[in-house]
Amino acid sequence: MNINFYSGKRVLITGGLGFIGSNLARRLVEQGAEVTLVDSLIPVYGGNLFNVADIKERLTCNISDVRDPHAMAYLVQGQDYLFNLAGQTSHMDSMANPRADLDINAAAQLTILEACRKENTGVKLVFASTRQLYGKPDYLPVDESHPIRPVDVNGINKLAGEWYHLLYNNVYGIRACALRLTNTYGPAMRVKDARQTFLGIWVRSLIEGNPIKVFGDGKQLRDFNYVDDCVDALLLAGASDVANGKVYNLGSREVINLSDLAEMMVSLGYGGAHELVAFPSERKAIDIGDYYSDFTLISDDLGWVPKVGLREGLEKTVEYYKANRQHYWDTEK
Amino acid sequence: MNINFYSGKRVLITGGLGFIGSNLARRLVEQGAEVTLVDSLIPVYGGNLFNVADIKERLTCNISDVRDPHAMAYLVQGQDYLFNLAGQTSHMDSMANPRADLDINAAAQLTILEACRKENTGVKLVFASTRQLYGKPDYLPVDESHPIRPVDVNGINKLAGEWYHLLYNNVYGIRACALRLTNTYGPAMRVKDARQTFLGIWVRSLIEGNPIKVFGDGKQLRDFNYVDDCVDALLLAGASDVANGKVYNLGSREVINLSDLAEMMVSLGYGGAHELVAFPSERKAIDIGDYYSDFTLISDDLGWVPKVGLREGLEKTVEYYKANRQHYWDTEK
Repeated sequence: MNINFYSGKRVLITGGLGFIGSNLARRLVEQGAEVTLVDSLIPVYGGNLFNVADIKERLTCNISDVRDPHAMAYLVQGQDYLFNLAGQTSHMDSMANPRADLDINAAAQLTILEACRKENTGVKLVFASTRQLYGKPDYLPVDESHPIRPVDVNGINKLAGEWYHLLYNNVYGIRACALRLTNTYGPAMRVKDARQTFLGIWVRSLIEGNPIKVFGDGKQLRDFNYVDDCVDALLLAGASDVANGKVYNLGSREVINLSDLAEMMVSLGYGGAHELVAFPSERKAIDIGDYYSDFTLISDDLGWVPKVGLREGLEKTVEYYKANRQHYWDTEK
Repeated sequence: MNINFYSGKRVLITGGLGFIGSNLARRLVEQGAEVTLVDSLIPVYGGNLFNVADIKERLTCNISDVRDPHAMAYLVQGQDYLFNLAGQTSHMDSMANPRADLDINAAAQLTILEACRKENTGVKLVFASTRQLYGKPDYLPVDESHPIRPVDVNGINKLAGEWYHLLYNNVYGIRACALRLTNTYGPAMRVKDARQTFLGIWVRSLIEGNPIKVFGDGKQLRDFNYVDDCVDALLLAGASDVANGKVYNLGSREVINLSDLAEMMVSLGYGGAHELVAFPSERKAIDIGDYYSDFTLISDDLGWVPKVGLREGLEKTVEYYKANRQHYWDTEK
């Protein structure tokens, strides 16, 4: 991909004030894209104005909810690319309030696609899906042919949202693809609590000098992508027509268990410790055991490989939150 | 299963005034169950009061919409069984009005399950799902391990609805299972148009002396279940705890292509003819080619096999509509 591929392109990012959206926005602005962010700034979700404080003069920020069909019908008009990242990400919240999860992760996606069908069939969409919909793996690493078996309401609704995108690609020719993200981490993630990623609350614990709490025996395997690698994948998927109608796993070759991950974080030298705690029963019910991805397909099709090592990524992340904690949890903005 | 298994049991049927719901209600009433039907009687869906005219004194009929959380929270209370058959069945309507399809086939299912979680965790649910969610088959016959690949909005939403049931079984222990129905036909099906099954409009054409219109080359293979066989499967699934958390295909060994099916209908002696017509483009976009099911799993687990031959079933069906046409299309009730 030409490094200025998005120069002059009109790009809409839903969830644009959130973790991945804001990092994507920064890269697009650097390439000279005309970027519009859509974000609801609902406090329990990922949006935070500080995430784009350094680039706010170089983009348009539109506070609205993807569940609002009128706002979406206007906002999709004239866009060349739509990175569709708005979502309810908490597995626990999806069980406690399944209807809100459905409205955001499924119904709003249909609203956005209908808006594109009526107002802008030329747009290219990239949807941020999740490895959550594979459920408890039958085999590892998990490739895109692995059976789909969501273990929580969030997984079911995210899957519906993903498939609406593929359907609109296949039936209406509105170019769309989906990336199934694994655990993504880095600057701008939500660290106030575990709603977006458990790594958020781990980073906060580390910086506050509290022990990192690892559920169960700590042997659960996971893979992680630093946010810059995730942004690379989004940009590649947007730029390539090979991706249209396809679903790609992201992932990492650096597979690690949660105890070792916690130890790695402690070893960064910012203090802290980790301790094993029993699985809360409501989490155990939706736990998936070991997980890591096979991301051969996106490597072959789009040339994507993750570049940032886990230790390096964690270091950058912890440094960021040490410097900026007041914008993420010390003051409730 | 004891032939009076449901005697004295309290049974709620959503979509109870529709095609399968009303046939199920009749069987349950004959066994001595206390049956309550829920139906919205929305004209474009399957509900028709005539479907239960012969048994209306022996059951309770509650006109309400499964999208109404307050009505559902009341109605699920005290029920032993919930046959969850309410649905938007038209593939074409799901594309034209995807939000209504989502509200009925996905969101309302979550409403019903939440009602059960809060008001009646002891109920057993049987959900009517569809073979539509397999999409265009990779192999035939299609078993339950076949990849899921919905080709229309209806398939995506039905799948979400199905999975919510399995999830509530697995996470909350609310016993639930799903049957993936193939083409079901028989007395009480909607024949006014093709919204429920193309066989409906074929029966109407035959009786009106109009040619049966077969799309494409007429070589598409399909399997069919007479409604009594489908009701058998529902009753068995409700009565068995082996079924909990499972999904079962229904199907038939009598596989036939659509031209031959039309010929069989014409050969019944009620007149008529059939003609091949080009696929309407909006139907071609969501067509799935050949389909028939492997139903070994439900045969092994629950002892279900379809008993009514296709010719016999068609004969009963056409006779029924010849006798009762004024209740189905001659007068718009």
